[in-house]
Amino acid sequence: MTALESALRQKIDNKTKPPGALGVLEDLALRIGSILGTESPELRNPHIVVFAADHGIAATGLVNPYPMEVTAQMVRNFLQGGAAINVFCRANGVRLKVVNAGVRASFDDVRQEDFIDAPIAAGSADYRLGDALTPAQLEATFASGRAIVATIADAGCNCIGFGEMGIGNTSSAALLMSAITRMPLESCVGAGTGAQGEALQTKLRTLQEVYAFHRLDAYAGDAARLLCQVGGAEIAMMTAAYLEAARQGMVIVVDGFIATAALLVASGIDRGVLRHCVFAHSSAERGHEALLRHLNATPLLQLGLRLGEGTGAALAMPLLRAATAFLNEMASFESAGVSNKS
Amino acid sequence: MTALESALRQKIDNKTKPPGALGVLEDLALRIGSILGTESPELRNPHIVVFAADHGIAATGLVNPYPMEVTAQMVRNFLQGGAAINVFCRANGVRLKVVNAGVRASFDDVRQEDFIDAPIAAGSADYRLGDALTPAQLEATFASGRAIVATIADAGCNCIGFGEMGIGNTSSAALLMSAITRMPLESCVGAGTGAQGEALQTKLRTLQEVYAFHRLDAYAGDAARLLCQVGGAEIAMMTAAYLEAARQGMVIVVDGFIATAALLVASGIDRGVLRHCVFAHSSAERGHEALLRHLNATPLLQLGLRLGEGTGAALAMPLLRAATAFLNEMASFESAGVSNKS
Repeated sequence: MTALESALRQKIDNKTKPPGALGVLEDLALRIGSILGTESPELRNPHIVVFAADHGIAATGLVNPYPMEVTAQMVRNFLQGGAAINVFCRANGVRLKVVNAGVRASFDDVRQEDFIDAPIAAGSADYRLGDALTPAQLEATFASGRAIVATIADAGCNCIGFGEMGIGNTSSAALLMSAITRMPLESCVGAGTGAQGEALQTKLRTLQEVYAFHRLDAYAGDAARLLCQVGGAEIAMMTAAYLEAARQGMVIVVDGFIATAALLVASGIDRGVLRHCVFAHSSAERGHEALLRHLNATPLLQLGLRLGEGTGAALAMPLLRAATAFLNEMASFESAGVSNKS
Repeated sequence: MTALESALRQKIDNKTKPPGALGVLEDLALRIGSILGTESPELRNPHIVVFAADHGIAATGLVNPYPMEVTAQMVRNFLQGGAAINVFCRANGVRLKVVNAGVRASFDDVRQEDFIDAPIAAGSADYRLGDALTPAQLEATFASGRAIVATIADAGCNCIGFGEMGIGNTSSAALLMSAITRMPLESCVGAGTGAQGEALQTKLRTLQEVYAFHRLDAYAGDAARLLCQVGGAEIAMMTAAYLEAARQGMVIVVDGFIATAALLVASGIDRGVLRHCVFAHSSAERGHEALLRHLNATPLLQLGLRLGEGTGAALAMPLLRAATAFLNEMASFESAGVSNKS
């Protein structure tokens, strides 16, 4: 325990409550203080950034119950303020940015301050037949991801969560998870937007073939190579966004399955990123719980969400605020004149 | 399923997300809509009311690590805005009312709009030796509890949570729970503010003697009698508050162990009260999980809290707001032009 952590622990224990009585919120307050490097942390201008991109595999319909064009339609929905992430960001006072990281549609007509049009080609290629992204494309997504977060940090934000939209992207996340954690694909592949029964079997079989085709086993330690093989543009951009957010000293709020898979990839590039993270929720998508365990992560919420978009991160923000608020505003036994335990 | 519930389900399923993807929040939205009787529910002027009272048993030190005077000191802390419940109510836009239901101290000097001075004697008598409350005292607490909630409803509030403060009150709650549910006291008695090891054994043994002395087994069906035997003034007042909140058609946000025990008592008087409840959290106090199961309740949060004061209810409020917000503000597949599942 560092000196700061000891000081935070002592401050928490002197608050007018039995020791430990605020449970997980006490650990959360300690963690936020540690990340921000102060006994009196404040969350400033919290943001959610949603990265959207299309996946070549989704054109086949082998892994996705919804058609590929839903990615672009949902981006329009974000821009009109009608998606779940818009609603939750508004409800919880979180600023939302939407990034076109590679959607198969044009957004040339859009002029909105909170929209960032930075597509890498028209999304990723079908990874059944070759690599999803070229090294040049990966490099471009990384540069964009870093630049986007750096700009947000410059605007005074010190707390950020990342969401995603991309029909087919649970498949990419499952492949990355299986390759890096060595857990069998069966444990990593889930329903996504709703693949069930026969459709789920087809999804799993398809991804097993992809896994073998790319010999992913051989690349567990090479995050960049894995992203080229089976990544998606939004996942790659999010990976870089995590690394930049850590570099900026931000509190990072980790959303669901795909966001956690991108974090897993980022932690393969720089393990230090994990010290900046709080985990928003445990989702209903099959692989998420195992992935959280792999990262030794204790999520704040268990709401059975499986929507992505950063919705879990947005819903967790009030808990982060509550944690910093009690640390900063609650009276101590001494200041309130309350008797401590005999 | 009623016609309203079917309409709510259909409205939720037409939102731009895979069916069920918002998990527990979908059930919550449906429940709030059902309670408020509309497809477009709005939470108005949410309140937490904290009932405080002393317990005769606490003067003995047999069941409580903190001395009895902490009840009065914490009420002062509430009035100065320095307790956890103050912080969480401020953070989440919830109005807080503090009620002196029977604290062994005078608050004659206090002139605050949000303080209600309605003490029933100086709290309850030591139930090792006789009844905790007289029938006249119980009647008075019930009248106060109902009147307080009716006044808050008149001010336009339709969403309310109840908290408590009272050194020794987990003991009262455990006795009530054991008597009504027939679960053994061992499963109902927990650490409270921090009784451990030998102190916890003393607490349990003391309460077993109290249970036998009052022959509580014989009164499982007589909620009013049980409250007189082993209740506390704050628990009794909260019981009446639940009944009035249900009568007013409010959404009731149920806090932790003691608040749920009071609800159990209230449900013994009018089972209909349960239809108005959402359960904020599962606390770390030993009996709470079993009590929630007994009531068939699924709590929203699992944060390991064991503080009381209504803190769990205050922390859950943003989830209630998020649930109504998505129901009212999210686009449908049709309105957003998003393709539904093929």
